[in-house]
Amino acid sequence: MGLVVQKYGGSSVATAERIKKVAERIVATRNAGDDVVVVVSAMGDTTDELLDLATQVAQDPPARELDMLLTSGERISNALVAMAISAQGAHARSFTGSQAGVITTAAHGKARIIDVTPGRIRAALDEGAIALVAGFQGVSQDTKDITTLGRGGSDTTAVALAAALHADVCEIYTDVDGVFSADPRIVPDAARLDRITYEEMLEMAAAGAKVLMLRCVEYARRYNVPVHVRSSYSDRPGTIVTGSIEESTVEQALITGVAHERGEAKVTVAAVPDHPGVAARIFRAIADAEVDIDMVVQNISRAEGRTDITFTLPKADGPRAVDALEARRADIGFESIVYNDRVGKVSLIGAGMRSHPGVTATFCEALADAGVNIDIISTSEIRISVLVADTELDTAVRALHAAFDLGADTEAVVYAGTGR
Amino acid sequence: MGLVVQKYGGSSVATAERIKKVAERIVATRNAGDDVVVVVSAMGDTTDELLDLATQVAQDPPARELDMLLTSGERISNALVAMAISAQGAHARSFTGSQAGVITTAAHGKARIIDVTPGRIRAALDEGAIALVAGFQGVSQDTKDITTLGRGGSDTTAVALAAALHADVCEIYTDVDGVFSADPRIVPDAARLDRITYEEMLEMAAAGAKVLMLRCVEYARRYNVPVHVRSSYSDRPGTIVTGSIEESTVEQALITGVAHERGEAKVTVAAVPDHPGVAARIFRAIADAEVDIDMVVQNISRAEGRTDITFTLPKADGPRAVDALEARRADIGFESIVYNDRVGKVSLIGAGMRSHPGVTATFCEALADAGVNIDIISTSEIRISVLVADTELDTAVRALHAAFDLGADTEAVVYAGTGR
Repeated sequence: MGLVVQKYGGSSVATAERIKKVAERIVATRNAGDDVVVVVSAMGDTTDELLDLATQVAQDPPARELDMLLTSGERISNALVAMAISAQGAHARSFTGSQAGVITTAAHGKARIIDVTPGRIRAALDEGAIALVAGFQGVSQDTKDITTLGRGGSDTTAVALAAALHADVCEIYTDVDGVFSADPRIVPDAARLDRITYEEMLEMAAAGAKVLMLRCVEYARRYNVPVHVRSSYSDRPGTIVTGSIEESTVEQALITGVAHERGEAKVTVAAVPDHPGVAARIFRAIADAEVDIDMVVQNISRAEGRTDITFTLPKADGPRAVDALEARRADIGFESIVYNDRVGKVSLIGAGMRSHPGVTATFCEALADAGVNIDIISTSEIRISVLVADTELDTAVRALHAAFDLGADTEAVVYAGTGR
Repeated sequence: MGLVVQKYGGSSVATAERIKKVAERIVATRNAGDDVVVVVSAMGDTTDELLDLATQVAQDPPARELDMLLTSGERISNALVAMAISAQGAHARSFTGSQAGVITTAAHGKARIIDVTPGRIRAALDEGAIALVAGFQGVSQDTKDITTLGRGGSDTTAVALAAALHADVCEIYTDVDGVFSADPRIVPDAARLDRITYEEMLEMAAAGAKVLMLRCVEYARRYNVPVHVRSSYSDRPGTIVTGSIEESTVEQALITGVAHERGEAKVTVAAVPDHPGVAARIFRAIADAEVDIDMVVQNISRAEGRTDITFTLPKADGPRAVDALEARRADIGFESIVYNDRVGKVSLIGAGMRSHPGVTATFCEALADAGVNIDIISTSEIRISVLVADTELDTAVRALHAAFDLGADTEAVVYAGTGR
């Protein structure tokens, strides 16, 4: 008998009917012989509705109270799924994140998991029951207050439980068939990947793939938890995220996929003095403004002992970042700030590119043939990312996907709705 | 600086607007110099809506999961009130029943409070914060599962906290102005009582008065917590429930009020053999059927060594009780069961009647003058209860109210809606 952890997102439990369907799948898994732990997100739009209620009574609700409020959503959905399971003849008990032993930092709204001590879950499983655990939440180690984990929190809860319970697999049920070689909405012949290594999935997520959050993949990688991303609407196998690029074999695909990101803007701090300390001052200014940065590119100096430093960031943070830099113009010494939010980022990911120098050449040729101009380039061991004009983003994605022959024979099926 | 515990029912917090109004009152109490602990019920019809969701996914939901589900309602309302208070400039923190130290039995849906250890509440108050506590819930001492307390649970939570924190008063905010000498919807000149002793309030509640639940009053009496029942729609004083009839003074009113109950039926087990053990067999049969009994009346035997035993019970349980008795007909030995659900119960309550033998006479004369026939009579030291035809219930209430001169000079104002 193995142990399976399953996670279902909000749309999977949005109505009583769907809850019953999810319960059927869970009971079937149990009946097949495995212990089952299930993490469920709040029903449908519950979290947004609760947030709306909050803003109706207070413009700037205290973070602690927001967590007390929002965690009700997962409590409700997990209790309902437990009831539906009972109605189908199996035993089930629901637990809050706190009861399940999810210990976190004290940062309300964006707490990080410190430890997971699932004693009560283990006890429930030993009694033959299915355990339901409210996702997206835990309890602060210091204050004993309830905390929420931020975006992707339910996936992270599921992976963390899988790690603590030494589960055989963590199944993430969503509304797509798995991880694809590119976004099927842009590339109709995108192929579902059977497997992908942790590092490649990390790069895909960082590069814009929305199916799994970065933190969840990192947690899985650290504790070696196989993550099976699959559709809640069918029984087809999805994509298994497992293994490291270090365990490379000759069958390892050269290239895994193409990811894209539309939500970023580019800031170039132009003609800064090229000497030690300048970059530090720039990024300290940005950090103080609490802006997260993605790509950073600095090339060699120009003739006059000056250089440009370019970075990308979420579009919403653009104005704030520019203001922060302008405020320290004298201190940093730049000549101008160039801001452009009409950009898109395209990335090619693949473990195999480490040992194949021709990949970069093929990459650039594919874009050139498609008439796409490259603005900036930034790479890692298994990823090549470029910024292009946002109007050329889709073209770039398709060109790269075709150039590296990533297409499947059948068209991917795209489901409506987004999971969490 | 004193300590005030306030309880607000579901209709008081049914919308964002009302939540903000309640927050204003709470902040005003705090600004007047008192520590404040607030117990809030779930918003409006939330509990019923959650119950409805539950029955959609399972016909007979497990009691443990029902408690996990329903307690979300109070969590939501308390967090929202805390937010509203913060928006008005005061500090507030919300707590679940478990976090507040409400320890209960393990009986889901009808748990009883065993102990209250409000350490975290006390700490919050010491920091100058207002503490919000989710009503209607606690944590089981044995299983550590979340429990709900059954009807009137939020009132009981408030009184229990007031007792544990040695509060000066427990204010129960509802949609009536206080406890009245009779139901103002039947008796237009019913008077609001300024004060009422614990024992009289117990009798009023047991006799049908719906403003406070029996268990809540008993808890207050045991720990000597003054309970102030008042309207959430005004600043007028309500009724203070405090003191014992033992502390009688010459000013103690002879009669306090008239209560009535429409929801009962009458069962007469007719012509049972009048010897030891028969009554025991009757009431064991009823107890096994899990039926709660109210009045029990047995008079002296008839000539043939037989007697009648009559009792009242909730109408909904009538058929079940009759079936239980019929099933043991041979064992009990009755000749017939007479069942009548067209009855109403009227009660006169007053600490002073102990020392005034004329009360019973005036009682019976008033009903006779009004043409109301008395079916059965049952009394306690401070209460006289009779069963009459349900069609004569209102007449009986008015006749008694007038006969004992309980009317006020001004008509009572009746508010729509019911509190919990």
